Amino acid sequence: MSNPKKVKIGLFGFGVVGQGVWKNIAQNRNALEARLGAELAITKIVVRDSARERTVQVPNEIISTDPATILEDPSIDIVCELIGGTSQALEWTKQALKQGKIVISANKALICEHGEELFKLAQENGGHYFYEASVAGGIPIIKTLREALVANRFSLIYGILNGTSNYILTRMEREGISFEATLGDARSLGYVEADEALDLDGIDAAHKVVILAYLAHGKWVALKDILCEGIRSISSDDIKIANELGYKIKLLGIIARDFEQNSLTVRLHPAFISKRETLANVDEVYNGVSVTGDVVGTTVLIGRGAGQDATSSSVISDIADAVSILQGRTSEARFAQDNPLEDSETLELSKPEALESRYYFRFKVKDEEGVLAQISHIMAGHHISFATVKQKELPDGSALIMATTHLTKEALVYSACEAIKNEATVIEAPVYLRIFDSEAYLT
Amino acid sequence: MSNPKKVKIGLFGFGVVGQGVWKNIAQNRNALEARLGAELAITKIVVRDSARERTVQVPNEIISTDPATILEDPSIDIVCELIGGTSQALEWTKQALKQGKIVISANKALICEHGEELFKLAQENGGHYFYEASVAGGIPIIKTLREALVANRFSLIYGILNGTSNYILTRMEREGISFEATLGDARSLGYVEADEALDLDGIDAAHKVVILAYLAHGKWVALKDILCEGIRSISSDDIKIANELGYKIKLLGIIARDFEQNSLTVRLHPAFISKRETLANVDEVYNGVSVTGDVVGTTVLIGRGAGQDATSSSVISDIADAVSILQGRTSEARFAQDNPLEDSETLELSKPEALESRYYFRFKVKDEEGVLAQISHIMAGHHISFATVKQKELPDGSALIMATTHLTKEALVYSACEAIKNEATVIEAPVYLRIFDSEAYLT
Repeated sequence: MSNPKKVKIGLFGFGVVGQGVWKNIAQNRNALEARLGAELAITKIVVRDSARERTVQVPNEIISTDPATILEDPSIDIVCELIGGTSQALEWTKQALKQGKIVISANKALICEHGEELFKLAQENGGHYFYEASVAGGIPIIKTLREALVANRFSLIYGILNGTSNYILTRMEREGISFEATLGDARSLGYVEADEALDLDGIDAAHKVVILAYLAHGKWVALKDILCEGIRSISSDDIKIANELGYKIKLLGIIARDFEQNSLTVRLHPAFISKRETLANVDEVYNGVSVTGDVVGTTVLIGRGAGQDATSSSVISDIADAVSILQGRTSEARFAQDNPLEDSETLELSKPEALESRYYFRFKVKDEEGVLAQISHIMAGHHISFATVKQKELPDGSALIMATTHLTKEALVYSACEAIKNEATVIEAPVYLRIFDSEAYLT
Repeated sequence: MSNPKKVKIGLFGFGVVGQGVWKNIAQNRNALEARLGAELAITKIVVRDSARERTVQVPNEIISTDPATILEDPSIDIVCELIGGTSQALEWTKQALKQGKIVISANKALICEHGEELFKLAQENGGHYFYEASVAGGIPIIKTLREALVANRFSLIYGILNGTSNYILTRMEREGISFEATLGDARSLGYVEADEALDLDGIDAAHKVVILAYLAHGKWVALKDILCEGIRSISSDDIKIANELGYKIKLLGIIARDFEQNSLTVRLHPAFISKRETLANVDEVYNGVSVTGDVVGTTVLIGRGAGQDATSSSVISDIADAVSILQGRTSEARFAQDNPLEDSETLELSKPEALESRYYFRFKVKDEEGVLAQISHIMAGHHISFATVKQKELPDGSALIMATTHLTKEALVYSACEAIKNEATVIEAPVYLRIFDSEAYLT
């Protein structure tokens, strides 16, 4: 495969991202081809429904509903899987990789669930599986970790990785409105995935966290083994209290490595984060990732986490890397993007309950004498003490107690909540949020 | 050069950065060599004084004062030029490139002044000239522009590119103290270069702006053709007024491309920047760069702009790219980091005086009746009108008038200043700062 002048690309899927890739290659074709020293030709597009209306016009003859037009065309070296889902996408990706093709994917669910098998297939067959667009849209976090920060080992990576959640939290904060009210707007703007749990229960962001944990630490973590909580329980009261105390509430993915203990913490949940942190001010649909390497220190990347153009910018970046490989480079070492940065044989995943953190609690209680004392007493019985407390009467005669704690263990939080929710004076199970402190991970 | 297991590296210079490269390769050697699939061997180090004490211990036999030990050793494929300056560094870089070696540099002054010749030499001889560490220390801005955002053309790149200036401005803002007082502290902390003009007159940052402009737009801009102003004239009053109006003052490098007019604006000067901009909150010695691409939108990178470790992280990233090339990749296309992203034959550099902007002015005047009216009148005569005005008496009986203007042309600002400084009531030449508005560049 020496220095081809024309590189042939096949697309599986021609939805939002697929059309974006076509449109943006066309738009900057001259600059792009001059930069790469190659002609980029999308010669086949496989779709479910070839009659469907699209905003981007392509020649009829390259559209097909038959995956074999790509899979059985040996002239196609680069395959972009942009259909999503984990059934057909898995099948076609495997077939393409078995033929040694370079497969480019924006499919975080597929990589999260089947990455181990797919990266192995790529290596065994001399192909590659590239995935810049799968995490944080237009932010080049994969290339930055893998190449730019190759000198580093990563004690802490944390970030805002789901634009929809961030949009909802931002509107709740700015307008003081409820989760439900904001969600309605987000839905009508088309920001929420058809499967709403992906955005609202943190699953989409958790997929991305799993991918980054693999890249940085070489360990495949199962979704079921990590703590994954979405933003459904956040109230405007929580956001207001956070603000008064100097925090914002953000949905954070956290990957922390303790090199001494050789243990890895992988978590996804909303958290208080100090307004002084750069990521606290990443609002609306933007994503941001903070990376602390042992050599470079802390580097922060902020950008658009989703959308046709930002995502296709990352897909085209992967196409460019694939072209470089096809132009005569070997398939070895780190440019095999399918290799993680670390070997993980002995690396141990920390259990969610092992976290030490400060916490924020919201208790909905009967507005009776001694309730605060009672709750403080139960918490103290679990070795949890309050740092700040604020009580508020509600129109229905109940009260909210909102408190932050000193440092404690998550296991104690679980048991304290169990105890408290069974009290007669307690109306709802307590809501708690962790108070994120990057320093705690960096000592 | 097929897939060498051992890659030999020579260092010119073993000061702060050179020792950092040695130390950090040693520290993460196992992870790094596994990632690269190659052994990294620094086999020669050329220094001025071989007897000098160093914090990093290296075997005596690899230290030499004779550049020929590197230049005439054909087994050395990668040469890191870490001596700085533009005389010996130029000579040795040219000799290494003539032999087809890959040269890695952190020397922004050299690239800025001689980059055109050096990149040409690299291409003619099948070598490369890599320079990630020359701009913004540990922030991977070169790789991000060149590779991650390869799909884009860049309408606006702006950033904080000099950590020392940023440190001084941050302390002035936080503590309300003068430039001189802060400068003393910065000096005693060793933050200020021996040649203070590099930091204080913006020259260091201007070097970096010139390099980024070349990379993104393919045009070598001469330092003398761009506006370059440092931070010496900033007073704590300026910072206070900025704060009241919702701005911070930052030393900004600005590279704006107008694709319709095919013109390029390259500037380096302190400016008011809205606190809402992410970069306004990049403080202390940190650097930050905001990149707006036509596909990806706006992406911001923040990190350590200088220092032994951050800089060596970038040098090692370049070493990794060099290893990839030596492992059998061709020297073509975009992995030739010496190619700019754009062809610039017809691209025109905008003149500094062509800028349209809002401005902040500080006038020191005699505290007499009608002075404000007189100044407003002269400004109006140059078609400049004030948006906000604040007047303050000084203990010496003079007064400060601090005003922001509506949109105007920089050429008119020059002529208005000329007129005003000759007025009998005006004690000092007016100080002005531009009010940066990223939106203005993006329409």
